[in-house]
Amino acid sequence: MTASPFDHPFLSGLLGDDEIAPYFSAGADIRAMLSFEAALAKAEAAHDLVPGDAARHIADTCTAFSPDESALRSATARDGVVVPDLIRQLRIAVGEDAAKSLHLGATSQDVIDTSLMIRLRAITFLFAGRLSAIAAVLDGLDRQFGQNRLMGHTRMQAAIPISVGDRLDAWRAPLATYRDRLTEQSFPVQFGGAAGTLDKLGTQGPAIRASLARELGLTDTAQWQSNRLPIADIAGLFASISGSLGKIGQDIALLAQAGDEIEISGGGTSSAMAHKQNPVAAEALISLARFNATVLSGIHQSLVHEQERSGAAWTLEWLLLPQMTMATAASLRLAKELTANIRRLGAA
Amino acid sequence: MTASPFDHPFLSGLLGDDEIAPYFSAGADIRAMLSFEAALAKAEAAHDLVPGDAARHIADTCTAFSPDESALRSATARDGVVVPDLIRQLRIAVGEDAAKSLHLGATSQDVIDTSLMIRLRAITFLFAGRLSAIAAVLDGLDRQFGQNRLMGHTRMQAAIPISVGDRLDAWRAPLATYRDRLTEQSFPVQFGGAAGTLDKLGTQGPAIRASLARELGLTDTAQWQSNRLPIADIAGLFASISGSLGKIGQDIALLAQAGDEIEISGGGTSSAMAHKQNPVAAEALISLARFNATVLSGIHQSLVHEQERSGAAWTLEWLLLPQMTMATAASLRLAKELTANIRRLGAA
Amino acid sequence: MTASPFDHPFLSGLLGDDEIAPYFSAGADIRAMLSFEAALAKAEAAHDLVPGDAARHIADTCTAFSPDESALRSATARDGVVVPDLIRQLRIAVGEDAAKSLHLGATSQDVIDTSLMIRLRAITFLFAGRLSAIAAVLDGLDRQFGQNRLMGHTRMQAAIPISVGDRLDAWRAPLATYRDRLTEQSFPVQFGGAAGTLDKLGTQGPAIRASLARELGLTDTAQWQSNRLPIADIAGLFASISGSLGKIGQDIALLAQAGDEIEISGGGTSSAMAHKQNPVAAEALISLARFNATVLSGIHQSLVHEQERSGAAWTLEWLLLPQMTMATAASLRLAKELTANIRRLGAA
Amino acid sequence: MTASPFDHPFLSGLLGDDEIAPYFSAGADIRAMLSFEAALAKAEAAHDLVPGDAARHIADTCTAFSPDESALRSATARDGVVVPDLIRQLRIAVGEDAAKSLHLGATSQDVIDTSLMIRLRAITFLFAGRLSAIAAVLDGLDRQFGQNRLMGHTRMQAAIPISVGDRLDAWRAPLATYRDRLTEQSFPVQFGGAAGTLDKLGTQGPAIRASLARELGLTDTAQWQSNRLPIADIAGLFASISGSLGKIGQDIALLAQAGDEIEISGGGTSSAMAHKQNPVAAEALISLARFNATVLSGIHQSLVHEQERSGAAWTLEWLLLPQMTMATAASLRLAKELTANIRRLGAA
Repeated sequence: MTASPFDHPFLSGLLGDDEIAPYFSAGADIRAMLSFEAALAKAEAAHDLVPGDAARHIADTCTAFSPDESALRSATARDGVVVPDLIRQLRIAVGEDAAKSLHLGATSQDVIDTSLMIRLRAITFLFAGRLSAIAAVLDGLDRQFGQNRLMGHTRMQAAIPISVGDRLDAWRAPLATYRDRLTEQSFPVQFGGAAGTLDKLGTQGPAIRASLARELGLTDTAQWQSNRLPIADIAGLFASISGSLGKIGQDIALLAQAGDEIEISGGGTSSAMAHKQNPVAAEALISLARFNATVLSGIHQSLVHEQERSGAAWTLEWLLLPQMTMATAASLRLAKELTANIRRLGAA
Repeated sequence: MTASPFDHPFLSGLLGDDEIAPYFSAGADIRAMLSFEAALAKAEAAHDLVPGDAARHIADTCTAFSPDESALRSATARDGVVVPDLIRQLRIAVGEDAAKSLHLGATSQDVIDTSLMIRLRAITFLFAGRLSAIAAVLDGLDRQFGQNRLMGHTRMQAAIPISVGDRLDAWRAPLATYRDRLTEQSFPVQFGGAAGTLDKLGTQGPAIRASLARELGLTDTAQWQSNRLPIADIAGLFASISGSLGKIGQDIALLAQAGDEIEISGGGTSSAMAHKQNPVAAEALISLARFNATVLSGIHQSLVHEQERSGAAWTLEWLLLPQMTMATAASLRLAKELTANIRRLGAA
Repeated sequence: MTASPFDHPFLSGLLGDDEIAPYFSAGADIRAMLSFEAALAKAEAAHDLVPGDAARHIADTCTAFSPDESALRSATARDGVVVPDLIRQLRIAVGEDAAKSLHLGATSQDVIDTSLMIRLRAITFLFAGRLSAIAAVLDGLDRQFGQNRLMGHTRMQAAIPISVGDRLDAWRAPLATYRDRLTEQSFPVQFGGAAGTLDKLGTQGPAIRASLARELGLTDTAQWQSNRLPIADIAGLFASISGSLGKIGQDIALLAQAGDEIEISGGGTSSAMAHKQNPVAAEALISLARFNATVLSGIHQSLVHEQERSGAAWTLEWLLLPQMTMATAASLRLAKELTANIRRLGAA
Repeated sequence: MTASPFDHPFLSGLLGDDEIAPYFSAGADIRAMLSFEAALAKAEAAHDLVPGDAARHIADTCTAFSPDESALRSATARDGVVVPDLIRQLRIAVGEDAAKSLHLGATSQDVIDTSLMIRLRAITFLFAGRLSAIAAVLDGLDRQFGQNRLMGHTRMQAAIPISVGDRLDAWRAPLATYRDRLTEQSFPVQFGGAAGTLDKLGTQGPAIRASLARELGLTDTAQWQSNRLPIADIAGLFASISGSLGKIGQDIALLAQAGDEIEISGGGTSSAMAHKQNPVAAEALISLARFNATVLSGIHQSLVHEQERSGAAWTLEWLLLPQMTMATAASLRLAKELTANIRRLGAA
């Protein structure tokens, strides 16, 4: 039941990420969806659209609520989204009175897209930290080996000598850019209602959306339910990160093959050849870079998102973005481990 | 822990497949890997390379053996493959004597690629059956509605009337081709040893490989550890199947939008609009087709498989092929359900 | 006016192919389209649908006809396809009487898809010959250096020694498969009329299509105007070929970097470093492999071909398949040149 | 000789762009490369690295120089890049004395990457203007039809009525973002020398690079010869633009199919059905969006750019980025034409 290495009992040791994976658990998604419903009720109460008591009751219920996952599964099979059944279960939990104030003016996509943004915001914060950690390792290598001599290679041929510091500069340069972009990345709330027009909220729509965004710590923007640029932007950033880390992996694999300009600890063992030390993490960085490069294409196919909301293009995002995130997470983890395992670079 | 919808607690209701998913469980992979080791020992005993007793003992042990999965996970993190630690555990289980006859002349890739082929062979058998079932449903629709009139559309415009049978012919045509291809698809054993030369088996290498293939019900071919055409072929076939089913999904979604030429039962409900019947399965077929079209690209990137065995290109396959298989499975399942839910096509 | 390197004044020296490029000239396309119209008139005359005289007159006119290309260009801008204006011009050329017998029962897609198949058939014949030539070069290398010793590499690490013959076997294995597939590849005529039903030909439709196919040397099959498997099959085969040749390029680039196990003549010069011999052809093989791997994805997106004929999915094929063909051509050319430039492999 | 529709005698009527295509002519590339050499000589003269006279002579020669293109072609075949032969020819043209001051400290990639950036900067300026023009057309449609009623569709089903203005808002929203991004996009000079270290310029390297950038109107940044983020960024932006325009195309194609909520002039004619008005431009927008989504993947594969400079990954960019630019150009042109052809949207 583990077609994806990111979630696999043993492959996740190599390709998974224990810190980021929980954000894609069903439980984390449900908690984020419930926080949307709680925040929506509060925002609507603040604008007198629903009674304050009902909103508080909804918020309290959401805190403790644990849905029947098996019912969610069969309902998702039927509805294509989990939200209608989650709301059905939640209506029962909040009781008939407050139920009228629940999910008011919202649609499935509001809940699901916002849940994703809540979790991506947290994840990118962690990613920025990891980039800093990698940069710190590279700084350390520079202090230790920066003056060492390294044969520069162009077009797969020895060219002229460079310093280890030159190579490290090339590795580090994009990482600082990525850290800035992760930090500045905006995570927009999605709130549009049935067809993106907040039709049930009258003139108060934008104000309620702004309150909702504030409540959730997200950016307030007009609905983007059929304008998937926020998704494409984040996917592009993730693919760029893993791409640049893949370049580091490729460089280290080539250094390890030549053998005399690098020493690494922690390489993998072989079932056939006891003498080998395989540069496993370096290779995995390449694989993860090519994985993200591949699936980014599908995210961009999803920009052709028809009409007010597309089922097909949206579902395609679900098949791709969480895994791109996991690939980026694994890539950051492995790049840190791999560079930290470098014992020597270049020759004095 | 469920970044992939194929394995997700609730999304798998829509995008998963209960019959095929178990083939990608860690347990199924381990059982197939153990069957490789058992068959290898038998084949080597048949050629007097190892004692018959040892081979029988290995085979018996493999039948009952259940490895420590947590150790497998941390070893995979280190080695990049699960096999060295699996063999280490298995050596302990078979005892010192028989251990010398275990995994003799084999390498990690032999075990993992062959395990994949064992499972893909079983899966494609099931896929062929599903294609037949879909064809039977389409035959039934043809008998019932084949003479009905349908507006033919070209370039997204009404063109000239056709019959429902004409449309059904277009849907059915590729399915028969796919069934034939699945049936004729060969599933080669992978057996090459450390560098593909079966160096430890002397002149008996090819004969042992043939015995091994026979034992496992696979095709005997020279090692393909760096020639990944068998993988690209299967991936291409799967992507073609889901692509053609995606075309059916797209057609049905367009029919459902126009509304007067189709009646379907079992559509999805909406959290915002009680009156809607969303063609959920039709949309999911499009999503799955575009998913496979996207990731097929990565499988072909893996053809650039350097030297005797590539870690990077091989690992990329792991990230893609199991999920392509799951997407194809879900696509076949949904196409069957969706077409079986058609209550009327065209107008009398 | 040369965004594509395949057609570029100087880049085509590296990435183009003088033998295959002419098949994608506008002139070659027009000649093939005219041969469709001539053959159609003949086939329809053979079945008494049009007068024999008219058919002969049409065929004669088609032989000599040279359309106004500037009118074709502006008409293509308006119509999305070149055929309506080509037929308009051709109707004038054949005169009012024969014009009634021209393009009878056909649609634009019939002409364009069939023109493509006529040219692809010729191209794949040439490709098969090139594969044989590469195989012959590899056979020669095997005779000369097959017994030489080469360090086998797995996971980018020296593993155990193999022979040059072992490496050459890995290179050769898929080439024989490809040659067989190219030879056996079927090239179907496309003939369906307005909506795929040959509605204007009554019961004679299939018989006329069979005659047409025979006349053109193509395979007779039911219309595939919305079932694009023939396109996906050819694209998959081409991408597989360039992928396997990319593997050879990658191997040679890695050998050239290490430097002591290969000698190649004819490497490229550098504007900055006079001492370098860049393995240009080896690198280009990798680029072309990754190009085809990338764009194959778009061909599979086109399988989601809505209704009777899709403008969008079909146009996407035009943007991809000719260039995949050119990439494959360049790949075959370069693989031949590169392997023929190998002066030594391995060590005695 | 026209495998690419962007450069094709008649297909370019639909898919080409007369304003942008000239930037990818060999001539425009050569002029931009010569302007690099002229600016480099000036910058080096300003820092006393070469004599001012020589620099002026080089600049004058570059203005008038017209290389032998046939020699460039065969040299590119050998060297993998055009620059060594261009410099060889240019050295002859400037004479022996000044030749010593030509291309000093530069490498092929400096010339080619910078030439690309010079042209992309001009192109994005034009793109920004086109986005404004499209936005103006949409504003006009809003003024005329904004209050009209349109049936909102979600998941390919009629949902609730919206206004035409709501739909236009969804179309316009990303365009303003793109215009800002195009305007703010930085176009970095590439100048690194043989291995990215400006080894021939001593401590003056960065200062000369800054002068060079100023001279060319580009941004001064450290060399990015193996850090291809600038390429990935521009490609991502282009793919996003064509993706969002593809969404407009998809919406219009669906409106045109339903038929009663839109009137468009200028549709295409059919060779089989005189009554049809095909939404050709709408479909082409979808094709171009999917094309760019497809090839973006290859650009990201190129981020795995080994060592100081990669031949393989760099050549892959050449195969993709110019065509992505052309696809974006055609997409902007068609979106303008298509929206300007809308005669009515929605119902009063």
